[in-house]
Order: sequence, then structure tokens, then C-alpha cells
Amino acid sequence: MVRVSRKEFRDLADPVEAHDAIASLDLAPEAETVPLRESRGRVLAERIDAEMDVPGFDRASMDGYAVRAEDTFGAGEGSPLELELIGEVHAGVEPDVTVGDGEAAEISTGAVMPDGADAVVIVERTEEREGNVVVRDAVAPGDSVMLAGADVAAGARALGPGTLLTPREIGLLSALGVDEVPVRGKPTVGIVSTGDELVRPGEPLNSDAGQIYDVNSYTVATGVEEAGGEVRTYPHAGDDYEEMERLLVEASEECDLVLSSGSTSASAVDVIYRVIEERGELLLHGVSVKPGKPMLVGTLGEGESPSAYVGLPGYPVSALTIFRTFVAPAIRRAAGLPEPRTATVSGSMAVRERYGEGRMRLMPVGLVEDEGGETLVYPVDKGSGATTSLVEADGVVEIHPDTEYLAEGESVEVRLFSPDVRAPTLLAVGEDDPALSRLLDRLDAPRFLPVGTREGLRRLRGGVPDVAVAAGPLDRDIDGVELGRWTREWGLVVPAENPQEVTGLADLVERDLRFVNRGTDSGLRSSLEAALAGLAEERGAERRDLADAISGYELTTKATESPARAVLRGKADAGLGLRVTAERLGMAFVPVDREPVRVLANPERTGKSSVEAFASVLESADDLFGQLDGYEIN
Amino acid sequence: MVRVSRKEFRDLADPVEAHDAIASLDLAPEAETVPLRESRGRVLAERIDAEMDVPGFDRASMDGYAVRAEDTFGAGEGSPLELELIGEVHAGVEPDVTVGDGEAAEISTGAVMPDGADAVVIVERTEEREGNVVVRDAVAPGDSVMLAGADVAAGARALGPGTLLTPREIGLLSALGVDEVPVRGKPTVGIVSTGDELVRPGEPLNSDAGQIYDVNSYTVATGVEEAGGEVRTYPHAGDDYEEMERLLVEASEECDLVLSSGSTSASAVDVIYRVIEERGELLLHGVSVKPGKPMLVGTLGEGESPSAYVGLPGYPVSALTIFRTFVAPAIRRAAGLPEPRTATVSGSMAVRERYGEGRMRLMPVGLVEDEGGETLVYPVDKGSGATTSLVEADGVVEIHPDTEYLAEGESVEVRLFSPDVRAPTLLAVGEDDPALSRLLDRLDAPRFLPVGTREGLRRLRGGVPDVAVAAGPLDRDIDGVELGRWTREWGLVVPAENPQEVTGLADLVERDLRFVNRGTDSGLRSSLEAALAGLAEERGAERRDLADAISGYELTTKATESPARAVLRGKADAGLGLRVTAERLGMAFVPVDREPVRVLANPERTGKSSVEAFASVLESADDLFGQLDGYEIN
Repeated sequence: MVRVSRKEFRDLADPVEAHDAIASLDLAPEAETVPLRESRGRVLAERIDAEMDVPGFDRASMDGYAVRAEDTFGAGEGSPLELELIGEVHAGVEPDVTVGDGEAAEISTGAVMPDGADAVVIVERTEEREGNVVVRDAVAPGDSVMLAGADVAAGARALGPGTLLTPREIGLLSALGVDEVPVRGKPTVGIVSTGDELVRPGEPLNSDAGQIYDVNSYTVATGVEEAGGEVRTYPHAGDDYEEMERLLVEASEECDLVLSSGSTSASAVDVIYRVIEERGELLLHGVSVKPGKPMLVGTLGEGESPSAYVGLPGYPVSALTIFRTFVAPAIRRAAGLPEPRTATVSGSMAVRERYGEGRMRLMPVGLVEDEGGETLVYPVDKGSGATTSLVEADGVVEIHPDTEYLAEGESVEVRLFSPDVRAPTLLAVGEDDPALSRLLDRLDAPRFLPVGTREGLRRLRGGVPDVAVAAGPLDRDIDGVELGRWTREWGLVVPAENPQEVTGLADLVERDLRFVNRGTDSGLRSSLEAALAGLAEERGAERRDLADAISGYELTTKATESPARAVLRGKADAGLGLRVTAERLGMAFVPVDREPVRVLANPERTGKSSVEAFASVLESADDLFGQLDGYEIN
Repeated sequence: MVRVSRKEFRDLADPVEAHDAIASLDLAPEAETVPLRESRGRVLAERIDAEMDVPGFDRASMDGYAVRAEDTFGAGEGSPLELELIGEVHAGVEPDVTVGDGEAAEISTGAVMPDGADAVVIVERTEEREGNVVVRDAVAPGDSVMLAGADVAAGARALGPGTLLTPREIGLLSALGVDEVPVRGKPTVGIVSTGDELVRPGEPLNSDAGQIYDVNSYTVATGVEEAGGEVRTYPHAGDDYEEMERLLVEASEECDLVLSSGSTSASAVDVIYRVIEERGELLLHGVSVKPGKPMLVGTLGEGESPSAYVGLPGYPVSALTIFRTFVAPAIRRAAGLPEPRTATVSGSMAVRERYGEGRMRLMPVGLVEDEGGETLVYPVDKGSGATTSLVEADGVVEIHPDTEYLAEGESVEVRLFSPDVRAPTLLAVGEDDPALSRLLDRLDAPRFLPVGTREGLRRLRGGVPDVAVAAGPLDRDIDGVELGRWTREWGLVVPAENPQEVTGLADLVERDLRFVNRGTDSGLRSSLEAALAGLAEERGAERRDLADAISGYELTTKATESPARAVLRGKADAGLGLRVTAERLGMAFVPVDREPVRVLANPERTGKSSVEAFASVLESADDLFGQLDGYEIN
């Protein structure tokens, strides 16, 4: 099966062909009628002409007195005139008076002008006196009156087809008494998730059998809704031909567009490929972009109106990137919606980036603002299999196949993953730490990349992040401005009640205990190495020899809690970790030492408001550190 | 009652006080839990830490062969090695092999690494031969393998509180198996519409009694939804104190915020004022902005958590402007949503605008792009009672009380009425015409202001619109580039079967017929005047005398169909109009003449793409004119 997939991708289409292939498909559903109240965000399917005058009557536009204008000629502050007050007219009531020569009727804003009257004298220029009105202003016919149809005349064009309905259009239509509107239909998009290994979130997962949670169904479904489509999700399909065929055909009968997505396994791709070839038409197979090569475009179903079909790649970032680049615009077009204005942001490259693979690259990037508010763009490349890229990248930069590199400072256009995406206010990198997690909660929209102390300091030197968090001994001068620091107690995390009676590092060296370590990027690992060096010195031994004597010293894991969790699962007897982690997981703790954790700011960002906010959060975090065992803030 | 309202507004708050008063109210509802699938656009209420490793197992990241890396040392294109093929592992299946020295297992992307193996040789660097695998590449431990927890480690901070959930965050959460999320609640906003004269769209309207359709309930309700609130609409309240009190108190018990809106009549304002004073607390009454002076801010209800209350002005544009300026930001804050980035646009004033009224002005403006794509801004001031301002303006420019005027070309910041608002692609002004309505349907997002021929030509000379449409005889040289023209047949529209046997203009002069005319801005009116002048010349009379002899000559209406509709309603015997209108309304038509209708482009916009599009629509509009009686395109 593996061999088959290799062959399929030989003849890749270029991105323009892929756009054209999708544009050639018909996704547009029929128009429908919806209640006006639910029409926000929809698009008018046809012109709406006014069927009535607005206002429907000659309407007083001020509070005052309805008069015959000619009766007020000559009136002024110095030469008031008196008119006989014959009644009053309120909004929403049919007038029961007729205004004759020398007469006036009190009138409220919005009321119908009584017969005979042709103007309103505003209340501020009048005074009532013994059943009469004293008028201190001359008015012309039509003053303070809105004539019937003056706002909208019956028969006039109110709104054209293709108009996006926002509150103001909805307001105009309600003024016209319209309570339902003909709108473009929302394309129905079926999502078929494939792959034997996928499990729906919320259901139990068997990791030993290689199961993973289905990511693409959710990202693509919400992406479809964002683009103005209506989602139909189909029950998960395995890699079996008959089941896949049944599901895809069912979806094609019910939907304008069918998207499949999910498995990266060659067998699933191969099965879908065969279904499309046999039950529809394959227009394009494989596109010359990175990421996203394995993309299928075709039709599904027989008859006059087959459904459109696009097969997305399996990796989440690839799937979302291909969806946004090729599929979302087609859904918006079918729904009649304009391209969102916020979908792009300009910025300059924070680092130099080489390329030159000869196919178009949709490079995932993150955004960070410098102190002056300019947007800096840096590549995020963790391999498209990483779901964290989804939230660590903000969008993609399209790089032409002929581009060999992007220079530092070069201006680029970033297509955001969705219009709601914002650059984080603070970009922090470095050592992960439970106190840090809580501190970040007190900031507005920070991003933290848990790359460890060593890699964090390297990135800080590179100038991209605002802040690096460094734990453990620092063996060189750091080019960063310290915003604050705390200490944390570290040691060995062992099962509850410490069944092996581990007492310290020496036990790891001397006894047959299985250990789980952290990677060399971790500050905790540096502290462990320093402690081992101390032990070696006491014994007149080499640190390296002690390390070699520890079973599992090279068994490294990524995050603060990972070694402890390995112990919990019975994979080891002791793990490198923090007192607070042992507490949290209900495990026992063998203390070794304390280590400092420093928050270091990029010297060129100390005036950035989010960096200042971080500093002040650190200054007033006593309450937070009081809740964490083994922590002290300095 | 009118007198009371005058007193109330004496002590106006400034806009900052109004913002502060609203900010002092508590609108924020409690957090809630929603299914992940329905969480798009919601905001996380608390931090989410990973409860599991992603991936949950060591995972092959390429198709190939799982091996012990040390077995491949020394392999290369020139020095292939052979390993024994002992089985295969697929995604979603627990491995049933253990890889020993000199062995390899075929493995698919996403599959679990079998015990013993620590790297994958990608399929492209291998070949199968007689039960063995030929390996042409040396790999290091970990190559093409994603270790358990390498993407997200259990215990790591996944997303912080305040995170807006877009497809990418939803993707990360689904990878973590999360199927429901704690989110900020949506503030519940009750809308109480007031005013005896208001009728809900779709219900019958009695114009003679001064009824109008309720506009604000719909614009405000959709505005609340746009800002992230949940709407509750209350049945329409009249101006009666007991009813209003009952409704407002009921709404305050069920909602975080109560908005009233609707009537402009002083009595309704007065009644609400009393209810708030008696059943809550009035914090602010009247704000020094134009439009929007009559704004109330307070609380409603007793006990520990009264509901917030804001009373909006009655005129639709004022209500929407005040809502957007003061209320929407508070709703977004309560929902935890960021201010939308698209809510503002920069442009330069297309005309000079005087001001200087001593209170802040929120000036409604329209947008138009010049040929170079720069945004021009022009004031739209039709009186805030006009609902058409809702769609003819795109947003507001905030003018400081001390500003005396804005110069032409001055740069201004426009706050759009909603983030979805776009400048129209084409701004056309001038004579309304049924053929024009249909032509506009063929353009993408045009705006047409039916100001009549004379006013349209005046505006074209002012340089703001892209195009003016002029009907009738043109008595001076026009500084516009003609894009196209057509002729239309005009005359007298009379009741079906012409009961009065009207035969032409002479009948209007000689007989006792009631006539309805168009206004002097209309090109049709100019054609009528020219025809009357001809008749006068035949008779050796003055045109003016003939006009004076026509009963209703000065009874003018706004739009093409208005005179005909007046005849339909029995208000007149004949109306000035078009053959096509008589056809459409099932009336009889007495032809008088034909008149030209010209489409004239602003000479500085002939290269604008929408103007070019209009020209080409005109060139290929034969089909359209073929369907309209009395029309011919030249």
C-alpha cells in the first residue's frame, strides 16, 4: 500500500491549477427565505424595492405646534403672534382636529400632521397663554415636517442583490415592514473524517493501539462555519473501501461540497482515491505546495448535479492551511460573502529564512510586535504533524517556488488563520513552570513557547521574543533585563508513600532504580547536573561516571510533569521534578535542592506595555506563590 | 408633557462621563460550559492544561521501516545494508512485532513504533528484496519519530483564560481530547421597544394613525448579537406607566442589561424616566453628543445585583450610533471579546464640513474610493429621523466640541457601523429609474442615492460621486464623461381603463383634473416643463399660466412611482410618470414624449474599475431594455 501512494504524487498541479479546479466546481446552493430577525450576516439573493412610503404620512419631526405656515408670516422674537390652540396630536394616534386660519394644534415628534397644517413651530419658540399659543418664529411650509415618502418612496430600490445584511440594512428593511428576506443559501459542507486511528474528543483513547483524537473534523468544521457554510459531520469512517464509499456517496447526495480529512496513512488516501475515481471524477491529485501536497479535487455522485469534493491532507496544520488557501474562498464565493478584510496583516521578517524547494511554500508564522508597535514575523516550523503549531502560528506567508530566502527585515504579507486572530500581546519563551502558568493567566493574551531554558536564552539573543524564562544555574552572562525571579524546590518524584524508600540522588547511582530525566534544554536538568557534579566531587569521582551509573539518565521527557507521570504509569521508580508536581499528582517527593527561575526581558522591549505589565504582575504575585508548595518569590 | 422633556436635558453629561457611567455597571454574566464543537467565537473562562501527552505514544512521522538506528550505521546509496523484514505496523493498530538486531518492520505514518525500534528509515531510501529490506540511508535514534508528549506534554499550559476560540484553538483542544470548555457567559440583553406608534415588521400598518414600523428593536438586537450578547426581546410596550414598569422590571430580572429604545415622543421618554427613578437608580440623563442627546444610564431592580439599564434615543441613526459608541464596547467587555480590528477606517474629507455647536458630534459619513484607491469621506446628513441614513452612511466621524470645521482633504478616522461594513464599489447619484435599478443589480456592491437629476449633477461637479444619472433635457454643458444612455417614454399615469378619458397635457390645463407632479430636482419634471412650454408656444400663451391652471402642479413627490401610487390611492386623477410604471402597477398610460437618461462619469474616476464595469454593463444590456416597456437603449 505504501508503494501506491508514492506513485500518486508524481504529477503535482501548481497552486493556480488547484484554485481553478475548485473554482470550476459548483458549490452554490439555492436561495432561501429567512426571517429578517435571523438574517444578520446573510447576503441578499435579489433586489428589494420599497413597497411603501416611509414615513407613510406627513410626520412632525419636532415637538411643537402644527400651523398653517402663512399664519406665522411676520412673527419673531420682537413681534409675537397669537394662534388659537384647538387640540393636540400625539404619535400613534389619528388626528381629530383640522387646523384652520389662525389656529394651531399641539403636536409631538412623530405624530401625523393634522389636515390644514403644513408646518410645525418648535416648542422652544412658543408659549401657551390662556388657550392660545404665542408664536415667536415665522415658519415656511414644510418646516419641521417630514413628508410622506421623503425617507424612502414606494417603488424605490432599497437594497441590491449581493448586499451583506448588517444591523443597518436590517434596520432599513424593518422600516419597510419587511419581515422575511430572500438570501443566498449557505453551502452545505459534509465532513467525512477518515482513518482507523481517529477517535472523537470526549471518547476514551487507546494510545497503545496508536489512537489519536480527531483534530481536523473540528478545525475544518469551525472553519467552514467561519466561511459561511453549513456543516454536516458524518460518523467516522475507517479505512475500509465499502464503508468509505457508502459514506462519501451519502454525503455527496446531501451536500454541496464534501471534504474528507483525517488520516495521514497512505492506505486511507488510497481508498478515497479509488472511491472518487469510481463514483465521481478526479480533477486534480496532488498540488505543489508545502505543506499540503496530498490534496484531491473532484466531483462525487452521478447525475446532473454531482457534489464537489476536496480531500484535505491529514496533518492538522496542513489541513487548515489548505482549507484556508483553497477551500474557504470557494465557500465564501458560494455564500456570496466578501473576503474578510482582516484576513491579512503586513509585517517584517524577524529572522532570515532559507527556502528553495521548488514548490510554493505556505510557511506558518507567528507574530510579535516590537516596542514601536511594528509587527515582526517569525517562522514556526515544528513539522506539520504538531498540533501545537496550530496555536503557535498565527497565519501563513506564501513563498514563491523561486524564492531562495527571505532576508531579515524583509516585508511580508501574512494571511491569518482566521479573521479573529490577533498577535499575542507578549511572546515569552523558555522553561515551563507551574507558577509561570498561573502568572501568565494574569496577563492579557500572552503566548508562551515551552522550549526550555537553553533554547529560550538562545532565542532571546536572537531578538524575537519579548521575554525568556530561565531556570537553574546560569553559566554565562545573560543579555536580558531581569523583571523578577523566584525559587522552586526540586528533587525526585516517587510513587505515593515512597515504596522504594528513595532518599536522594545517591540512591539513583547506587541502587537499581529506573529513573526518568528531563532534556538538556531544561534548566532542571542543569540543576541535576550541578548536583551530580557536587556528589562526584564529594566522592572524588567523575560526574559523567555517576550519570552513566543511573539507569534511564538518557531517558528524557519534555515537560515539568512528564517524568512524574512516567513514574505514575509505572514506567520508572523516580523522576526528576518539583515538589509542587508531586503534591499535585498525589505522589511522594524526595527533595534535593532549590533553583532560581528568572524572567528576563529582551533589552529592546522593556518599554513594551505587555512587558511592563508582566513586571508589575511579578511584583504583586505574593498571593500566588503562597499557594504553591516549595516556591518562594524574591 | 412636552414641557417636562425640555427641562430634563438641561444638565448634559459629557461623553467621558457617559462611558464611565456605563463602565461602572456590572453586565458580566457567570461562566458556562459549552460543547467544544459549539465554542467558536467564545472566550475561555479559565486556563486549560493538557491532561494527556500528545501524541500519546512514540509515533512514526513518515511511511517507511521501523529499525534500531544502530543497525543502519554505515548505510548509504553506495553501501546499502539488508535488514530482515519481520512484519508491518499500521496506524490505529497495536504493534504485534518487536524489532530485534538486524530486523525491520514496515510502518505507516501515524503508527505506534514497535518495541525495540527507535527510528524510521523513510520508504524512499529503501527497497524490498526477497523478504528483506535494502536500506540506503543511516538514521539516528529518533529520526522520523515523534516521541510521546513531544507535541504537547501532559501538565503543560495549553490555553490561557481570555483566549478567543477560533478553529486553531479548537483544533488544539480536540487533540487534547477536550469535548467541553468553560467559557465566559454571553451577557443577556433585554430589548424593550416603546412607543404607541410602533408596529412590528410583518404586521399591518395604519399610516393614517401615524403608525410606523419598529426599526430600533431590530438594529439594536442584531448589534447586540454582533457584540457578543444574547438578545431577549420583550413584547412592545405602549407609553402607559404600569405596562412599562411591569415590562422593565420583568426584563431586569431576566437580563444583565436592559435597553429601551423606540419612541421619540416626549411622553414615552418621560414615562421611562419615572420608572427608572422609582424602580432603580438613574446615573445619567442626557449626554452632550449629536446625535443622541436623550440617553439614560442607570440600574433597574432591587437587591444585590440589579440589572444595568441604558435608554437609547428614538431615531434609528441616533440609536445605532449611541449603541455602537457607548453600549457595544461594554457588551464586548462583559463577554471578554476584543474590540474588532476592522471597526475603523482612515480616509480624507471629500468636502469641507462646518460645525461648532459646542457638543461632541458623531457625524454620519459615507465612504467612496477614488481612482487611486484612497478612501474619501463625505457627511451624510438627512436628519436623524431618516432610516435611509442607516444605509447611506457607513460609519461616524467623532468631532470634538471645539472643532469649528473639517477642511477638504483633512484626514479623519471613521468608526464603521459594524465590522462587516465595506465602502461601496461604486457611488452613483441622480435620477431614479426602473431600468437603472436593474442595471445596478449587475454591479458588485454599488450605492445609489436617488437625489434627482439636478442635485445629482451638482454633486458630480462637487467631485464626490463616481457617476451621476441625469434624465430629461440638459440645459447646460455637463462636465461628465458619458458612459451610456437610454430613452424612456413618459406621460400621464391614470387609473386602469382611463375612466376620465384623459388624452394629454392639454386636458390637465383645460379640465378639472387633480394632478400629482414630481419635484424640481427630477429630470421628468424638466421634460414636463419643456412639453408645457411647447404647448404654450402653440397657443401663444405663457408656460407659467398653463402650469398655474393645472390643479396639483405644485403637489410634488419624491420618486418615479410616487405620483402613480397617489393616483392608485385615489388622491389624484393623473400623475406624472413612465409607461413602465403604469404597466407595473396595472394602470393606464397617456403618452406624452420620450426623454433621454444619461449615465455620466466623474472625469477623475473613468479608470476606476467599478466605473469601467458600469460602462460594460451598459454595453451589454440589450436583454434588460428589451423587457421594459417604453425603453430603448442607444
